[in-house]
Amino acid sequence: MPLHRIYHTPGQFSKDDKKGLAEAITKIYTNPKGANLPAFYVVVLFVPVDEENFFVGGKTTKNFVRISVQHIARSFDSHEQSKSFLEIYESALAPFIKERGFDWEVEIEQIDRNLWRENGLSPPLPRTDAEKEWVRLNKAVPY
Amino acid sequence: MPLHRIYHTPGQFSKDDKKGLAEAITKIYTNPKGANLPAFYVVVLFVPVDEENFFVGGKTTKNFVRISVQHIARSFDSHEQSKSFLEIYESALAPFIKERGFDWEVEIEQIDRNLWRENGLSPPLPRTDAEKEWVRLNKAVPY
Amino acid sequence: MPLHRIYHTPGQFSKDDKKGLAEAITKIYTNPKGANLPAFYVVVLFVPVDEENFFVGGKTTKNFVRISVQHIARSFDSHEQSKSFLEIYESALAPFIKERGFDWEVEIEQIDRNLWRENGLSPPLPRTDAEKEWVRLNKAVPY
Repeated sequence: MPLHRIYHTPGQFSKDDKKGLAEAITKIYTNPKGANLPAFYVVVLFVPVDEENFFVGGKTTKNFVRISVQHIARSFDSHEQSKSFLEIYESALAPFIKERGFDWEVEIEQIDRNLWRENGLSPPLPRTDAEKEWVRLNKAVPY
Repeated sequence: MPLHRIYHTPGQFSKDDKKGLAEAITKIYTNPKGANLPAFYVVVLFVPVDEENFFVGGKTTKNFVRISVQHIARSFDSHEQSKSFLEIYESALAPFIKERGFDWEVEIEQIDRNLWRENGLSPPLPRTDAEKEWVRLNKAVPY
Repeated sequence: MPLHRIYHTPGQFSKDDKKGLAEAITKIYTNPKGANLPAFYVVVLFVPVDEENFFVGGKTTKNFVRISVQHIARSFDSHEQSKSFLEIYESALAPFIKERGFDWEVEIEQIDRNLWRENGLSPPLPRTDAEKEWVRLNKAVPY
């Protein structure tokens, strides 16, 4: 959990951009005052799509970034909570996307945590001692 | 919103095929008598998967097309409505897929519109003046 | 239905590994004592992601496998049922992933079967004669 698939055209992001953006996204989830998730939960995949394969409004483009996000370990309890998360998320994206003049779209799907495994293990419930141990070790261990 | 990921093997679609299919899909959503969405909402990504990575029934194939669709801006109210949409959608695909002799599979997942942003903005509700303005400008603007 | 997207880095799986893993996954679903699905329902896509595009915990890695699964033809009725499925699924993965020393994550999303078509057809309901005919022919035919 969280899985971020970032569909973009080749050349939009340098190696450093990708590192910077992945780190910025990861920090949102590992923040001890926020979700405080184990860092290894955060998977960010950059998926390059050639311009001739990337259509927005029926036209090819090399200026668009489409981000598909999956949440599993935490789910939103209210509209206010999701709004607040999306504001933080958009701030993390901005230097790499908005400030470069790209257009972009973001969507989050929420997955039932019962249908999720890390290294074959059913991950511990939010804010339990077991989850805190996974945070500390940054690793899935039996509990 | 709508996101169409079209998984196929290299060579199944020419550049013109891809343009034709992306345009046909886009028209379904921008039809003023239908959903009447802003054209830029419609993202179509062709994702080539090498034959050795594309398994159907445990065997590699270069004859299959797997389309994964996401809907956000509109959701189906009834089984009749989704059935009718899928008929229109299949007609758009047919010249590029069925009539070429390929096998194919289509599935649509529906996403909560509260978990969606376009250029950092929460998109306007269906058929509001703000949405019509986004249609007219084909652009996400503050409202 | 089931769609398995296996995100990995190049070199983690040989051609034979991919064949073996796809077959092992397919067998789970076609088992006559289990779901007994038509083999062609099972689509397994290996999606190679370059190491510089594959981030776990904000760091690039070539040791992680992320599997995103979609179920449509069958849905879980209970937590016990999904738990049991995931045990079988993890056993199928183990020789190719766990026993190689990779880390991995698995998640399943469930899709409404009304929003699904095979070769343009609405697939038959579970365990009907029509579904059994699709199993026998391993093909979508009008019913």
